[in-house]
Amino acid sequence: MPTIRPAAFVLAAALLASVPIGPAASAQSPTTLAIIPAPTSVTRASGRFPVDTATTIVMDANASAAVEDVARQLADLLAPSVGATRRLAAGAAAPRRSIHLTLSGADASLGEEGYTLVVGTDRVVIAANSPAGLFHGVQTVRQLLPTSVEYRAALNRGLAIPAVRIVDSPRFAWRGAMLDVTRHFLPLDAVKAYVDVMALYKLNRLHLHLSDDQGWRIEIRSRPELTRIGGASEVGGGPGGYYTQAEYSDLVAYAARRHIMIVPEIDMPGHTNAALASIPALNCDNKARPIYTGTRVGFSTVCVESDTTYAVITDILRELAELTPGPYLHIGGDEVEKLTHKQYITFVERVQGIVQAQGKQMIGWGEIAPAALDPSTIVQHWKKDSSAVHAARGGKVILSPNTRVYLDQKYDAETALGLKWAGLIEVRDSYDWDPATQIPGVPERSVLGVEAPLWSETLYRPSDFQFMAFPRLVAVAEVAWSAPAVRSWPGFRTRLGAHGPRLSALGVNFYRSPQIDWQKSGFIP
Amino acid sequence: MPTIRPAAFVLAAALLASVPIGPAASAQSPTTLAIIPAPTSVTRASGRFPVDTATTIVMDANASAAVEDVARQLADLLAPSVGATRRLAAGAAAPRRSIHLTLSGADASLGEEGYTLVVGTDRVVIAANSPAGLFHGVQTVRQLLPTSVEYRAALNRGLAIPAVRIVDSPRFAWRGAMLDVTRHFLPLDAVKAYVDVMALYKLNRLHLHLSDDQGWRIEIRSRPELTRIGGASEVGGGPGGYYTQAEYSDLVAYAARRHIMIVPEIDMPGHTNAALASIPALNCDNKARPIYTGTRVGFSTVCVESDTTYAVITDILRELAELTPGPYLHIGGDEVEKLTHKQYITFVERVQGIVQAQGKQMIGWGEIAPAALDPSTIVQHWKKDSSAVHAARGGKVILSPNTRVYLDQKYDAETALGLKWAGLIEVRDSYDWDPATQIPGVPERSVLGVEAPLWSETLYRPSDFQFMAFPRLVAVAEVAWSAPAVRSWPGFRTRLGAHGPRLSALGVNFYRSPQIDWQKSGFIP
Repeated sequence: MPTIRPAAFVLAAALLASVPIGPAASAQSPTTLAIIPAPTSVTRASGRFPVDTATTIVMDANASAAVEDVARQLADLLAPSVGATRRLAAGAAAPRRSIHLTLSGADASLGEEGYTLVVGTDRVVIAANSPAGLFHGVQTVRQLLPTSVEYRAALNRGLAIPAVRIVDSPRFAWRGAMLDVTRHFLPLDAVKAYVDVMALYKLNRLHLHLSDDQGWRIEIRSRPELTRIGGASEVGGGPGGYYTQAEYSDLVAYAARRHIMIVPEIDMPGHTNAALASIPALNCDNKARPIYTGTRVGFSTVCVESDTTYAVITDILRELAELTPGPYLHIGGDEVEKLTHKQYITFVERVQGIVQAQGKQMIGWGEIAPAALDPSTIVQHWKKDSSAVHAARGGKVILSPNTRVYLDQKYDAETALGLKWAGLIEVRDSYDWDPATQIPGVPERSVLGVEAPLWSETLYRPSDFQFMAFPRLVAVAEVAWSAPAVRSWPGFRTRLGAHGPRLSALGVNFYRSPQIDWQKSGFIP
Repeated sequence: MPTIRPAAFVLAAALLASVPIGPAASAQSPTTLAIIPAPTSVTRASGRFPVDTATTIVMDANASAAVEDVARQLADLLAPSVGATRRLAAGAAAPRRSIHLTLSGADASLGEEGYTLVVGTDRVVIAANSPAGLFHGVQTVRQLLPTSVEYRAALNRGLAIPAVRIVDSPRFAWRGAMLDVTRHFLPLDAVKAYVDVMALYKLNRLHLHLSDDQGWRIEIRSRPELTRIGGASEVGGGPGGYYTQAEYSDLVAYAARRHIMIVPEIDMPGHTNAALASIPALNCDNKARPIYTGTRVGFSTVCVESDTTYAVITDILRELAELTPGPYLHIGGDEVEKLTHKQYITFVERVQGIVQAQGKQMIGWGEIAPAALDPSTIVQHWKKDSSAVHAARGGKVILSPNTRVYLDQKYDAETALGLKWAGLIEVRDSYDWDPATQIPGVPERSVLGVEAPLWSETLYRPSDFQFMAFPRLVAVAEVAWSAPAVRSWPGFRTRLGAHGPRLSALGVNFYRSPQIDWQKSGFIP
């Protein structure tokens, strides 16, 4: 990871010049800090900032509730070493032995999510333009602390932060993961645990695939049969499950504290058998379809010629829009085999109108690109498609190329879980690609970001989901966040090896890829 | 693992002579089968028994509900390949392509827990003297199947069992694990997950440490203040928790299906601060003690001169006895610093009477040995103590030497979790010792078995508990089950390496000890 000093850093360093930092320790390579995703700029200094009972966490006098919450999460991480957070008096400087979270002094070029972090032997300052930037800065602090910080009850954790100056901001605005909770239902606690790990790696979008042929996973109060019937099945014949609206809202809030937005998907017009089994009127023959617990795709569709269908869709999307503070509703749109092209396109355009009437932006899988989409609509590329058409009309594209980031695909021929129709995907395959050149006709300016879907046909236990996601999702996080100049497979591979103990400490059942030299301690030797 | 053919095996082989088995494949070493704990005798043959939709699981016409339940658990493991289990007609032979569970034909010398397993290319027979023996035989079958069998939703699992003849029975009757759910509370689901892994390794006793200075974890209906006050704290100030009687009974039944007995411990007269905080009358000054959330020991005691104390203890042990079908009540008795020797001994003897009045056998930590114990009372050795005195009076001893099987001790100097007052304990330390020679004056005939305690001062997440327990508990399982002649560190080390993927498939966050060559597939190369 080369050291880069963009203008923002020079400015920040000048503003924070009162922080005492020793001379740069040229003998130490920057890559000995195992930060993932790689920051824009890392400059090591000598010495360490010890975290102990003398350490305080401070914020500015006028800090908002959101800033205070970031401070509280840092205090929780460092407990019991560090006590309550506190506000500085108006105009007061941060005291010695403090970690200072501030919205002053960060350069505008860092954007909404960037931050600067200056760790001196006597003081730490995280500066950003928003609470999200401070939160990301805290995640970097966390990764600079030893793995022991992740063990809530471990004794004598020996917490200290190496002196360093970091300037950092994301390459892409959309850094996402998708969970398929339909083929096998994933309990809320397991989703929250997934969110926890996403936050550590500065991912900011969790796309929930909430409906499919095998199950319906979100309570719709005006259409209770969707969960009563469609919520009680899954692949293989298990009991299924669903989230109540209260649980969904709880998850939205849980993710929001970690600066992750929930993006709900109701897949349509295909992948709808669970709905077709629940509401007979969604079928052109008005007959409920039988529950389906296999793994085929493409066989289902709602009746696109019936006004009843659109009334039901409106009810569903209205309730989902009310529950979802984020601006996006994902309507799926993939793998429809039972409609003509014209029927399909007409359906997509009509649903786009329904989404917009709810005040939301529509997202759909790549198949929707040929429709007359509004430029504000977002296309999620997953296989060879017409994304370039959407880019040409000024629309944005989320990249989920199945040969790179489909986390349900096997790592190698020995992987017992997963599928392999898109190929075997080892960690390096998920890492070693550039979003700017992935699709002809979709240049970097048209790329909103990257998202890694995890389909769950073969996944049963929460640990199964984790095994397929990690560490590939960590690689995807760096693809989405880090500038090309600071990304390299050898560097990532080394840093990831040092993250093994941290993932283990978080209880993540990750794949010990033979491509990685997994370290026993959290340090790079 | 040398091949041994005891009398029991020859008999079983004769009885099962109708099972077609190819000639012994001398080119294949028996150790290429990764069975833990090592069986008494393993003889490989050629060929495999494929498990597919043509496979059936059958039991004898007169099979009990307990046998049927073992068959059902095997069917669940093999689903969806194998359908429902079925009973044979009276006197009918098991058909081709069947796995036959039978209580006929096993030699009496196999005891209550032993079994024979004969896998031919066309038929599998598990024979035992009890459902427990059949259950253990099923665990061996499970370990002979590829790791993919543990993934409930994986596709194309390729299930097949290598042809083999196994005769097996345990060395010790008591093969235990202890969970400290007091210092940090462990939710019921996490305890069940622990039971699941114990069952795979033929452990048969789960000792629950239900009360200590920092928390009270079991509902006592006649003394509700114990959980109302004492149940709401834990080390570090977290919320604590407790099991209702219904939850405890649910766990007893869950474990019983897996042929594991629950052994409840109420620690007394010391390690009682949570009770002293809940019930003022347990203190000689009649004043409730403050809640304690630190990690010191030895400071607490109930008032041993007060009849009220014994009335409370009687209430507690009566309710616990009613909830516990197993014959044992553990009364702790360790680390008492606030009583004279005479006070302590008198207390232990009086409590022994209370336990016996409930129709139960008493167990206590090694400190109780100098009291006038009934020979039916069991002493649990954990440090240098007077266990030999108890052995000399004909009593039995459970071995929990802290330098070998204290799972809360660090693996090495880098381990962030755990303590180290008993020393660093790597996997080999937990494996390489002989219960028959561990304590001078306690010969093998006095050793009831082995138990590995997991104290939880430093453990917070369920994955923390797993990290410290595994793989050391797997080593202890072999120490307790396997005959000295079939045990060796090189053999165990190789087999354990092949169990890594299986533990991962079960979602166990285990320590990747550098002493082990962890395999990526479940096979020994």
